[in-house]
Amino acid sequence: MKAEIINVGTELLLGSTLNTNAQFLSQRLAELGEEVYFHTVVGDNRGRLKDALNLALKRSQLIILTGGLGPTQDDLTKEVVCETLNLKLNLNKEVLNEIKRYFNKLHREMSENNIKQAYIPENSIVLKNDIGTAPGVLVNWNDKKIAILPGPPNEMKTMFNKYLSPLIKENYIIKSKTLKTIGISESTLELMIKDFIDSQTNPTIATYVKEGQVDVKITAKEENKENSDDLINDMVEKVEKRIGKYIYSYDDETIEEALYKILKDRGFKIAFCESCTGGLVSGRFTKIPGVSQVFDRGIVTYSNRAKVEELNVKEDTLRKYGAVSEETAIEMAEGLLKKSNVDIALSTTGIAGPDGGSEEKPVGLVYIGVATKEGSHAVKFTFPGNRISIQNRTATMVFDEGRKCLLKLNN
Amino acid sequence: MKAEIINVGTELLLGSTLNTNAQFLSQRLAELGEEVYFHTVVGDNRGRLKDALNLALKRSQLIILTGGLGPTQDDLTKEVVCETLNLKLNLNKEVLNEIKRYFNKLHREMSENNIKQAYIPENSIVLKNDIGTAPGVLVNWNDKKIAILPGPPNEMKTMFNKYLSPLIKENYIIKSKTLKTIGISESTLELMIKDFIDSQTNPTIATYVKEGQVDVKITAKEENKENSDDLINDMVEKVEKRIGKYIYSYDDETIEEALYKILKDRGFKIAFCESCTGGLVSGRFTKIPGVSQVFDRGIVTYSNRAKVEELNVKEDTLRKYGAVSEETAIEMAEGLLKKSNVDIALSTTGIAGPDGGSEEKPVGLVYIGVATKEGSHAVKFTFPGNRISIQNRTATMVFDEGRKCLLKLNN
Repeated sequence: MKAEIINVGTELLLGSTLNTNAQFLSQRLAELGEEVYFHTVVGDNRGRLKDALNLALKRSQLIILTGGLGPTQDDLTKEVVCETLNLKLNLNKEVLNEIKRYFNKLHREMSENNIKQAYIPENSIVLKNDIGTAPGVLVNWNDKKIAILPGPPNEMKTMFNKYLSPLIKENYIIKSKTLKTIGISESTLELMIKDFIDSQTNPTIATYVKEGQVDVKITAKEENKENSDDLINDMVEKVEKRIGKYIYSYDDETIEEALYKILKDRGFKIAFCESCTGGLVSGRFTKIPGVSQVFDRGIVTYSNRAKVEELNVKEDTLRKYGAVSEETAIEMAEGLLKKSNVDIALSTTGIAGPDGGSEEKPVGLVYIGVATKEGSHAVKFTFPGNRISIQNRTATMVFDEGRKCLLKLNN
Repeated sequence: MKAEIINVGTELLLGSTLNTNAQFLSQRLAELGEEVYFHTVVGDNRGRLKDALNLALKRSQLIILTGGLGPTQDDLTKEVVCETLNLKLNLNKEVLNEIKRYFNKLHREMSENNIKQAYIPENSIVLKNDIGTAPGVLVNWNDKKIAILPGPPNEMKTMFNKYLSPLIKENYIIKSKTLKTIGISESTLELMIKDFIDSQTNPTIATYVKEGQVDVKITAKEENKENSDDLINDMVEKVEKRIGKYIYSYDDETIEEALYKILKDRGFKIAFCESCTGGLVSGRFTKIPGVSQVFDRGIVTYSNRAKVEELNVKEDTLRKYGAVSEETAIEMAEGLLKKSNVDIALSTTGIAGPDGGSEEKPVGLVYIGVATKEGSHAVKFTFPGNRISIQNRTATMVFDEGRKCLLKLNN
């Protein structure tokens, strides 16, 4: 079914609230087989809301509105929907009793303006609110379905999952698989699979890029699960043949989680020492729950003194090659491996900017050192972007270098 | 000016990406005096994008589009804008050279399809992309302004702030001042200044909350600068009288920058050792350019062994009180102070979850240790939220504890 989402609330247009409701509903609707073609955000304004609703009625079969169900005067979603569809709003005694019970339970007086929330459009289905006072509504109008849900994300999500989704389920199934790549640019990758992209129908193929990583998402739509699995597996296989060596994982797994999994599977321990990333590598890694099983320690050696004292980098190396050099990166990683006695130690040293760059060593130059009991090496990178972006890309490549090294290591 | 935002990208309609761009642009446009009446999200689809743009042209003077500037085939925002406005797309050699330089710097081959990004609508202003390859565009068309910005938030934000915002500024002046607070909840703070909020007209007062910090933003809109300065200063003074002790800084300064400034002013050095935050404290601190002047080192002692080896925490202390305890937090900070010989050392130890909590030591329990040559102490916190939120809140409070301690220290 063609679907669209209308989020009502001036706070969204002012940017004081992030519109997480649209994302949640989009994900759930896709899972239910609905095709979401538009999101619209409109303020608490009768005329503009009416315009948005009229437009949606012209182009979509399923319209989900959120927000504007509160007890106050500027909450007017139900009223505008009824005006637009020419429906009456009737007091629903059952709903009123629900609201009264809600206040009783909290030992609070129900205020007069909460009565407004018990008015329900004629010929519609009430969607219970298990968390707050405002019930939702599903209106079946001609061949269209119009749902109104409360704005607070908690109430909205519970109501959608429990009461609305069983009423709007489609017969077919949307499934997708994401191939996560690293070390290849979006444009190069796309050229490698251009014929698939050009001829896509079902499944569809799309690429998404984020700081040095490109995801390839393959999505199929079928009436039964087996068919869509077949469609996806077939295309995944074809794409893998072309870009397989850049794929590090599938679906939602991050590069740090991919590294974590290898470490855990093999019973290995890891340690990081960081100069230009300043703790970001350890910080990102420890966002993973349960990481203490594989993560021994991290050292942020921002000063040269700390590199010497903590990691036993030779002062001579720092003098001769500089802190940002292959030699220093390797000595950092080796020093850490030795002192922590882990299976793999990784280091970063580079120029994150904005200052400190030179012709010979520009901002964005980074060395990543890798040390294991079988040997050590460093990899040189030149990253684009500003300080934050260079730090993020460096951290991403640290995880990837760690992963690649472990895959080559004998167990 | 009536304004609206159109975010282009199928990933937004599928819910795989959260639309943070709309929020960022809404906030910035409000600050510039623009009135945002609609957000629209539309997929990478020629017909629907054209419909959305035509509708926007009917009702708004300023239209900001994001996304669809990439090198690939489904990136078609520029093309659709030109078709709709009847403008030619011309190859811009300067832009092409920029893109080539970008790839040269990275020692990577520019792929053929990147040339697409160098095509610019006739009679438009190029907005430089300091971070990526896709330039933005501002088209002045009849009495309207249509801006196209890249989709990746990093690129979009930098381009908006640096190149677009000066070109779309209104004639009157919007000025604002933000009071940054820490250690007080939004609802408590709001009650303390409720009379100001209820009676606000010009300047306006709004509160924004983010993981343990509440910002109070006071905004005035006037035709001349002096008037708005007076309006703001007057209100700032009134608000400060009520909530002064919670204010740590003003405007864009983060809590880590406030700490950095004190360290720099006094010529002090700092070091961090982290358990539950796993590098986040060092990582956030080193996002500040020039931080090497004050930051000596960071140690992430995730394992007990690392706490003993790196920080000289007594095994007896770990056994008797546990890793998450006041005693361990203090010994960590003291051990780091001694080994690094800095002016102030801070430690974190806590239970970030989701596992590892108990009745006595629940998820969210955190100790922050502070050590200087004048003595040491630990502060206990119980933070709400999930793992990431607990880590973020802990890091924020580390910077605040460091700041408060330094303000009390004699120079």
